[in-house]
Amino acid sequence: MQSPVVLPDLISDTEQEILRLLSVYDGPTAGLYEMMRYHLGLDASGSSGKRMRPLLGLLAYSSIKGDYHAALPGAAAVELGHNFSLVHDDIEDADRERRHRATLWAVHGIPQAINAGDMLFTLSRVALHRLSDLGFSDAKVLRLMRLYDMTCLALCEGQYLDIWASERSEPMSVELYFDMIGRKTAALIAASVEAGAVLATDDEEIIARYRAFGWALGIAFQLNDDLLGIWGDQAKTGKQPSDVARHKMTLPVIYAFEHAGPDDRSRLEAVWRTDAPHDGQVAEAVALIERLGGRDYTRDQARQHRDRALAELDAAGVVDAEALESLRGIIVGVIGA
Amino acid sequence: MQSPVVLPDLISDTEQEILRLLSVYDGPTAGLYEMMRYHLGLDASGSSGKRMRPLLGLLAYSSIKGDYHAALPGAAAVELGHNFSLVHDDIEDADRERRHRATLWAVHGIPQAINAGDMLFTLSRVALHRLSDLGFSDAKVLRLMRLYDMTCLALCEGQYLDIWASERSEPMSVELYFDMIGRKTAALIAASVEAGAVLATDDEEIIARYRAFGWALGIAFQLNDDLLGIWGDQAKTGKQPSDVARHKMTLPVIYAFEHAGPDDRSRLEAVWRTDAPHDGQVAEAVALIERLGGRDYTRDQARQHRDRALAELDAAGVVDAEALESLRGIIVGVIGA
Repeated sequence: MQSPVVLPDLISDTEQEILRLLSVYDGPTAGLYEMMRYHLGLDASGSSGKRMRPLLGLLAYSSIKGDYHAALPGAAAVELGHNFSLVHDDIEDADRERRHRATLWAVHGIPQAINAGDMLFTLSRVALHRLSDLGFSDAKVLRLMRLYDMTCLALCEGQYLDIWASERSEPMSVELYFDMIGRKTAALIAASVEAGAVLATDDEEIIARYRAFGWALGIAFQLNDDLLGIWGDQAKTGKQPSDVARHKMTLPVIYAFEHAGPDDRSRLEAVWRTDAPHDGQVAEAVALIERLGGRDYTRDQARQHRDRALAELDAAGVVDAEALESLRGIIVGVIGA
Repeated sequence: MQSPVVLPDLISDTEQEILRLLSVYDGPTAGLYEMMRYHLGLDASGSSGKRMRPLLGLLAYSSIKGDYHAALPGAAAVELGHNFSLVHDDIEDADRERRHRATLWAVHGIPQAINAGDMLFTLSRVALHRLSDLGFSDAKVLRLMRLYDMTCLALCEGQYLDIWASERSEPMSVELYFDMIGRKTAALIAASVEAGAVLATDDEEIIARYRAFGWALGIAFQLNDDLLGIWGDQAKTGKQPSDVARHKMTLPVIYAFEHAGPDDRSRLEAVWRTDAPHDGQVAEAVALIERLGGRDYTRDQARQHRDRALAELDAAGVVDAEALESLRGIIVGVIGA
């Protein structure tokens, strides 16, 4: 009999697994470890992320094998790796705020923040070595290392494309956008799920299905984020500036540019050239993006990828119905029913 | 019979091993791979470093086991890891030039340079996986991974201390300086040598001796660099600004501060507060550092560590006399007889 899967337990166990690595500091470098705890929301004033990636990994493991504890080092590695990229992304995008707190570079300056990101990167690898202590074979631990290494490679390639695109005046193509979010977002989510499956089973078909599930889910997750950034409550009520006001080139916008005639294109370009466009301009651009099909196309794509994810999960035919239900719940929670 | 060890061959084979990783790019991300080749001096206009770290690793391997080719992935990993830290250091220190060329961030901006550094970091891990293809056991490859991970951890801790110290007005203590260069410089050089030994033998005593050799050599190398930065030909002839003019807090300076009375301390502080001090001021400060014993102390420490390194090498009692001679040659070349 397996004990029921309780999501808050998974989160707090992952955080304990991470804190184990952040507590082995000595005197003079204590400040570096404080920076990392701050960024991760693991200090007193903590404001953490949703821990979606480690949750998915643990649930993937648990859906196949039951008790999730043996998979915690993998979950910690994924969360640390994700946060390394956030620390560097915040510098690269000059974002001064994340989760309603100052970003690391805004508090400690760019030099220390680059280095703290490197340290999180390093610790994401160190985390994996505890799998050996937990009895996983060297071959399995090495396979996980290779998976993470190839994922980081995709992550850096995706980030290169993102920075490159942000420095050009021309929008990228829809095709390149899918390429970019595959590397930048889907690769790590797929790796989280795949890692859980690799630790739980030797069945290569199940592993491949889980990876495909994670990949499709990652794409759906990003596209859903794209929709929320323009049509979500936060953006619509002005609680947070709309992605259009911030000139973010997400799929609805890129699709609209690609399908605009010369006049519509000029109108969109005008908003994209205006620093801090006023609400009326933003609303007009949003309406234009909708009229050009950007919203419908993105919603269709998000749904197709969500359905693909669910189909892969069903096809894997795993054993633990409860963990499977939790996984489904996360999908619906993240992407919408 | 072993073929003679030819240093330029070791270097060009290491570069080929690295290029193998830098050639697997596809269309849209080609620019990222170009950036890395530029930084590594592996493009047409190349100006590379001395490749000291991979050389030491290959010679360590070769001194125990003969032909060095099986150790090339380890050598590539060390060189890539070293260069990841250089790319990020250049941003952190706001250095616009390295090896007489513009640094990566000076050419492509800080966002792309941070990301290219992350990619070099990633590739340093990817490099190691080829050891499996070359027939090394999973246990050995994992041991190397752990060694590199713990080395990167030390590297980030050392870099944290370096940035922290550069942002304070008080000089750090001599004790903390040794702590810092241990993590920032000696750890990676020790790891290069240790990796070579780990790949070549299972004899833990030889491995420990080689590591101790690498560590002492790393400290000696850094202290020698400190001496050259003030009393080397380049600094003395003004071909390159003296470390004193650049306000670098190296061991001779830190020692002088620690042993200065109030008057001498004020004089040193005055130079350290002056932006671009003129030659007369620099010469006076250098004379003061010498009078306070900073030069003698640093030279003594460099020699002690060099002798310690040679003693560890002798005590290891390895087999290949020729590779051993090459190693000794590098020591004398780098640190002086």
